[in-house]
Amino acid sequence: MTLLTQLMTSVADAGWELLRPSERRTRRAGVADLLDLCRILMSSRGEALGTALARDAVAAYGRLDEEGKTAFLKALATDFAPDAKQIAETSKAYIEHRTWQAYQELSRAVEAPRQELFRRLNQAPRATGALVALRHDLLVRLPEHPELKEVDVDLKHLLASWFNRGFLYFRRIDWNTPAAILEKLIQYEAVHRMNGWDDLRRRLAADRRCFAFFHPALPDEPLVFIEVALTEGIASRIGDILEEEDDGEPEDPDTAVFYSISNCQPGLRGISFGNFLIKQVVLELSAELPKLKTYVTLSPVPGFRKWLEEARAEGKAGPLDARVRRSLKKLPETPRPEDLAEHEELLTGLCARYLLETGDETRRSDPVAKFHLGNGARLQRINWLGDTSEKGIAQSYGLLVNYLYDLDAIERNHEGFVNKGKVVASSAVTRLAK
Amino acid sequence: MTLLTQLMTSVADAGWELLRPSERRTRRAGVADLLDLCRILMSSRGEALGTALARDAVAAYGRLDEEGKTAFLKALATDFAPDAKQIAETSKAYIEHRTWQAYQELSRAVEAPRQELFRRLNQAPRATGALVALRHDLLVRLPEHPELKEVDVDLKHLLASWFNRGFLYFRRIDWNTPAAILEKLIQYEAVHRMNGWDDLRRRLAADRRCFAFFHPALPDEPLVFIEVALTEGIASRIGDILEEEDDGEPEDPDTAVFYSISNCQPGLRGISFGNFLIKQVVLELSAELPKLKTYVTLSPVPGFRKWLEEARAEGKAGPLDARVRRSLKKLPETPRPEDLAEHEELLTGLCARYLLETGDETRRSDPVAKFHLGNGARLQRINWLGDTSEKGIAQSYGLLVNYLYDLDAIERNHEGFVNKGKVVASSAVTRLAK
Amino acid sequence: MTLLTQLMTSVADAGWELLRPSERRTRRAGVADLLDLCRILMSSRGEALGTALARDAVAAYGRLDEEGKTAFLKALATDFAPDAKQIAETSKAYIEHRTWQAYQELSRAVEAPRQELFRRLNQAPRATGALVALRHDLLVRLPEHPELKEVDVDLKHLLASWFNRGFLYFRRIDWNTPAAILEKLIQYEAVHRMNGWDDLRRRLAADRRCFAFFHPALPDEPLVFIEVALTEGIASRIGDILEEEDDGEPEDPDTAVFYSISNCQPGLRGISFGNFLIKQVVLELSAELPKLKTYVTLSPVPGFRKWLEEARAEGKAGPLDARVRRSLKKLPETPRPEDLAEHEELLTGLCARYLLETGDETRRSDPVAKFHLGNGARLQRINWLGDTSEKGIAQSYGLLVNYLYDLDAIERNHEGFVNKGKVVASSAVTRLAK
Amino acid sequence: MTLLTQLMTSVADAGWELLRPSERRTRRAGVADLLDLCRILMSSRGEALGTALARDAVAAYGRLDEEGKTAFLKALATDFAPDAKQIAETSKAYIEHRTWQAYQELSRAVEAPRQELFRRLNQAPRATGALVALRHDLLVRLPEHPELKEVDVDLKHLLASWFNRGFLYFRRIDWNTPAAILEKLIQYEAVHRMNGWDDLRRRLAADRRCFAFFHPALPDEPLVFIEVALTEGIASRIGDILEEEDDGEPEDPDTAVFYSISNCQPGLRGISFGNFLIKQVVLELSAELPKLKTYVTLSPVPGFRKWLEEARAEGKAGPLDARVRRSLKKLPETPRPEDLAEHEELLTGLCARYLLETGDETRRSDPVAKFHLGNGARLQRINWLGDTSEKGIAQSYGLLVNYLYDLDAIERNHEGFVNKGKVVASSAVTRLAK
Repeated sequence: MTLLTQLMTSVADAGWELLRPSERRTRRAGVADLLDLCRILMSSRGEALGTALARDAVAAYGRLDEEGKTAFLKALATDFAPDAKQIAETSKAYIEHRTWQAYQELSRAVEAPRQELFRRLNQAPRATGALVALRHDLLVRLPEHPELKEVDVDLKHLLASWFNRGFLYFRRIDWNTPAAILEKLIQYEAVHRMNGWDDLRRRLAADRRCFAFFHPALPDEPLVFIEVALTEGIASRIGDILEEEDDGEPEDPDTAVFYSISNCQPGLRGISFGNFLIKQVVLELSAELPKLKTYVTLSPVPGFRKWLEEARAEGKAGPLDARVRRSLKKLPETPRPEDLAEHEELLTGLCARYLLETGDETRRSDPVAKFHLGNGARLQRINWLGDTSEKGIAQSYGLLVNYLYDLDAIERNHEGFVNKGKVVASSAVTRLAK
Repeated sequence: MTLLTQLMTSVADAGWELLRPSERRTRRAGVADLLDLCRILMSSRGEALGTALARDAVAAYGRLDEEGKTAFLKALATDFAPDAKQIAETSKAYIEHRTWQAYQELSRAVEAPRQELFRRLNQAPRATGALVALRHDLLVRLPEHPELKEVDVDLKHLLASWFNRGFLYFRRIDWNTPAAILEKLIQYEAVHRMNGWDDLRRRLAADRRCFAFFHPALPDEPLVFIEVALTEGIASRIGDILEEEDDGEPEDPDTAVFYSISNCQPGLRGISFGNFLIKQVVLELSAELPKLKTYVTLSPVPGFRKWLEEARAEGKAGPLDARVRRSLKKLPETPRPEDLAEHEELLTGLCARYLLETGDETRRSDPVAKFHLGNGARLQRINWLGDTSEKGIAQSYGLLVNYLYDLDAIERNHEGFVNKGKVVASSAVTRLAK
Repeated sequence: MTLLTQLMTSVADAGWELLRPSERRTRRAGVADLLDLCRILMSSRGEALGTALARDAVAAYGRLDEEGKTAFLKALATDFAPDAKQIAETSKAYIEHRTWQAYQELSRAVEAPRQELFRRLNQAPRATGALVALRHDLLVRLPEHPELKEVDVDLKHLLASWFNRGFLYFRRIDWNTPAAILEKLIQYEAVHRMNGWDDLRRRLAADRRCFAFFHPALPDEPLVFIEVALTEGIASRIGDILEEEDDGEPEDPDTAVFYSISNCQPGLRGISFGNFLIKQVVLELSAELPKLKTYVTLSPVPGFRKWLEEARAEGKAGPLDARVRRSLKKLPETPRPEDLAEHEELLTGLCARYLLETGDETRRSDPVAKFHLGNGARLQRINWLGDTSEKGIAQSYGLLVNYLYDLDAIERNHEGFVNKGKVVASSAVTRLAK
Repeated sequence: MTLLTQLMTSVADAGWELLRPSERRTRRAGVADLLDLCRILMSSRGEALGTALARDAVAAYGRLDEEGKTAFLKALATDFAPDAKQIAETSKAYIEHRTWQAYQELSRAVEAPRQELFRRLNQAPRATGALVALRHDLLVRLPEHPELKEVDVDLKHLLASWFNRGFLYFRRIDWNTPAAILEKLIQYEAVHRMNGWDDLRRRLAADRRCFAFFHPALPDEPLVFIEVALTEGIASRIGDILEEEDDGEPEDPDTAVFYSISNCQPGLRGISFGNFLIKQVVLELSAELPKLKTYVTLSPVPGFRKWLEEARAEGKAGPLDARVRRSLKKLPETPRPEDLAEHEELLTGLCARYLLETGDETRRSDPVAKFHLGNGARLQRINWLGDTSEKGIAQSYGLLVNYLYDLDAIERNHEGFVNKGKVVASSAVTRLAK
């Protein structure tokens, strides 16, 4: 008796068993077995068996090895694709008749069957997390398997619909949060690495705030989180924030500094939450602490040094004049903070130019600038030696930037940036660029 | 300054205000204003303004009068419809090239812009409930405005995806449940009307169970709920269940009787939860009370009398022979229970025939039979004078039916019913039909 | 084998059983068996058996009939009383030596063993509620069994320590509160009877507030609750509050009217929570609604009519002069509101005198006045026809009183009332009394 | 104006302020000010001012320096002591009259006023924790200030009443527990030190359990917690438990090993929770995992080596014969595990004798044995090289003991141990002792 027969038999006869975990059934299931399960799930029997098949299929996928996953994902691209002939017929019918029936049939024909498969898989307990993980599996395979891109079009569309802002919930993270969630912060922190639990605890102290979005189907998994320091005046150095001892409640903070924002789910790449999160945090903090006047980031400039080196490499053809190129020659390959002192004016000026003048180029090369300027923030200040860590020096000669969220201006700023590529900056930054 | 200009101005200048409720802005908004808001929401400005526009649009819709709602829904059908020309082009391109880009463009062209509009509206707080209500507004208008059907195709598709089983949560309802939820049960009970709080309390007593599905975005609104009585043996009369005094924990129940299942959200019509709920309840009860052996419904036969009267009207051409038609003549128009006594054999036999033999006809006319048989239940017993209420007599001369959920058989039963129209019944019912 | 022997055996041999409910053992237990259980519980075996014995003893008490309870309570008075001889010895020793050992021994000798018994009984699940109920059993027996008073001295002392303000939690009650708690409000409302769930719902509407204290060991049982109406200006008639339709959020309330405060646990008589509750509510409301300026009660005068009738009965010797006595003769025995119209001046004046001038007399006869004046409230206004219900007319000819909580003055008011019997009143009330 | 006058003024005039935190008022308060606050709190004004005075007094105590605390505690001993004259009078009256009034007056006279002070202090938010901390302050001063012992008699009595088993709640601790609680486990673990969060995480893995008691007034503070390993067979070495990698769910555990139990609150010394906790855990685990058959500890023998060295020091007069004393001479002062090998028989035999035969001596010197034997556990096994840590070797030459909790026998064992000093042991241990 083949495994498939066994599967079919057990599915058909199991009765009570059907509604119970069925590790034995899925333990040795291969790709072919999983595809069989998926086909049954798509049939009318799939309806009768409720969530049992979905659960088995999700479990079977989880047990595949890397090669098996690749094979399954490729089968999604081929076996669960839309039918071109039906598309041809239904689109023709729709264009002719424009009835709702024709519209419904066209919609069904265009939607790849794998979308319905994903929806049926999602009926199983914890399946949403499994589908997010499946998309991650898919994304890491895209470079080598571009044919999977079509599957991603469907899966991303579905996940974007399911992870709609209206379904997310906003939650403050503090030292009373379950450890199972807190350890995710340590793991996912993408901007300034956390050195374990003591570091985390410092970042959740009385003069800090941390907030995250969650989805009800992934209650232990933050989707995105933001770390905030409450300060007097706008912070210019990340070291002041990360290293400072906790000395109780800040006396009289007037500023909220967003010093780190991290996406947590690689399987949700391209589905943006950060924009919503920042605005929600501003609302939350302004209700809790009415004395806060300024909401500002302390952000890296990850594309600056790369741009600079490319600009130098272009020589005369590039944007840097001879004097600048000469000055830059004095910079060591891996400078120490003290090596940089004499270049302050040069580097801050070049950074201002990089952020202000390069338009599309910057957007391509600096996702941080693109994110905040796209959200309608203003380029407020460039901070010399803001981040003297190895990574900070390597990325941007230690420069950090404050982007200012002035809610009265964000729509105007956003429109200017999106429609005309205009970067709104403070006069100080504008002067630097000259 | 027109209201539209005001709207635009306030949207542009409001700043902080944007993120706050804006009753003033939406109080006098008409359909045209709402459509303007929707268009801004669909533009890039919609992204920058986050959830503020969505919230205003949802509020503005809620304030429209009935006529205004009709006008808005009609605009959704016309102004936010897919573009036939684009469909023609992209379907052609896809059929030719079959690239993922072509697939993505085709998918986008076919998806009506109102789908994206619904998703963006959903970003607002409590918008999911508003969209469910909007679909209800739409459904009640369909008979007079069939052109709205196209909008419903999109909205139903979206809601079915959002209300996927994987996102619902299952919850026991008892006397510790918040009153705000309990009053919904009184309001939504569709099978056996509840006479206020005392009646509800009886239905939540120690020998009863009640369960519901909820969606996280509608935390106070049950989607569907089921009422269960724990009994010794299979109950045959609803009066025994509804009127019986609560005398503490049942001694030794071996049977769970599902005596009422009610959908609560008319805006989710056609999106089925009951099937999942029954199976979840069987799991839950078998874990809590391992001594339960039988899971059975006590269900009305809402289509029986209507079918019988139509069959009589057909005379000789119909399915009833002369002897039966003669017997039926003796039945008063509105019989009292005591009038029915002499017709027991005749009526139970006819009811067995109605449920067993009429196939598609029954499915069309008796949604209860269709639901349980479609779920894979077995037609177990027909109960004489099971429901002697006015409604019970009027619908089915007081007959009630037990459908049995035997999990070992549901898949087989389901397949037979769905594929061949076969109704699986106990031998007792089969005999009755002869 | 006697039941006692059985009990002893089962206690000794039960093992696992000991830690499990033991309905059989306690079902037929009489007073003598219960007293045996209590004695074992007080021995060193009581320590080893943990909570099992306590649970059985609590269950056995709950199953006694009224006569049995009387007998058990009397045994508490006699068999678990302190030992006079030990008191004599240890008090002598303490007075002589004043060591801590002597102090400890004296303390132990004076504390009746039943206090330790109550503490050990309290180890059982839900025992705190059972002890509160036991005190209620005791209080209702006091008039006929004054010898139980000594038991009450101990039990009240213990309960007062356990129900210390620091252990209570404060909770808003609204329509999202579990029905199991809400029905207690309907049951316990002591001032203005609730007519079922609709009436309750009105009292929890958007322009109302309701708060209660709970103890963690009695999570479903409010100890005391208060009902508040948010109004513009100080309400003078209870009908306006109770009958008024809910028309959404009040426009612009500046006043919180405490129109009902009810103790819920007769077993906690004499242990006061209301004082704390009112002040907590003022804090809570002032945080939620900063625009509230006035905190005031709308209170009955339950002792007024009785005082008036006693005063009339005293004739010339009493406090009422001839003119007043003549006027009062015109009052019908059970007046209708319209009969009272011509007596407004007379009755309000007499009520002002009653509340202002009678000092200790009032405190004895009017617990409402005693409570609010003792809390430091000010007698603000006497309202003509404030409560025209049958009860209102019967108690006080329909008069209601506003007591004002001005937090700046409560300490001064309290000191004056407690130390000198001085009632602080508004000038309007003072004038009325003349 | 002295601080006292200020205090009095602010108390009298503060109004609203009274119900709000009053840091300024208490910041510079000295012992004399605090005692003034306490006296006001005990007066009738204390009742009117509700919790405000209590909160200030608690805050003021918290701000005293060590010397100030000593002075305040001494004032509690002298200024808030019972009145000997009243005791003399009321005890005489009680012995003569035996009325309930006399009983009440005697009880009041004997109860030191500081008990009522503690109860009134407890009205403030978080005061219970402050009183537990105050008792800790008191306990550490007892050796130098024996006159404080009288205060401790009262405070311990009150805390024992408040921390009655019936008020505690039982809670499983796992990786979903808030970090604020988890870090307390790291801090309080008293038996086998935890090396930070990774170690903690291991102790909360799928094959482990951890449970604690909490009091509602100290929701973030475990009172006592126990760590359990689920194993196949009885574990004999702590290293197997602490070092073993987490390899998922244990295959088929039949034994629960209690390998660490730690009290967390030094201010609750002498108030025992561990006995209740162990029995509650047995109940909990037997419900969750019906396959568990054996409940056993893996416990240190902290008094063994000390006893042995004292016995050697006594020479011929002591309990050790010449041969044994000679053998022991070969033991190095700080042996390594490998040095011990040749002494296994000798040391395990002596340990068995220590635990079995020394009666009261052992109880005095080995609190672990006293605790488990007093709970009714059986001395099951002595494990050679059970704990080879430095501490383990130093305490007991690496020996560990299993105490077995057989619920069928605990009462009998307990009675034998408490009444006759009899230690119930397995035959293996009994043989070892010979």
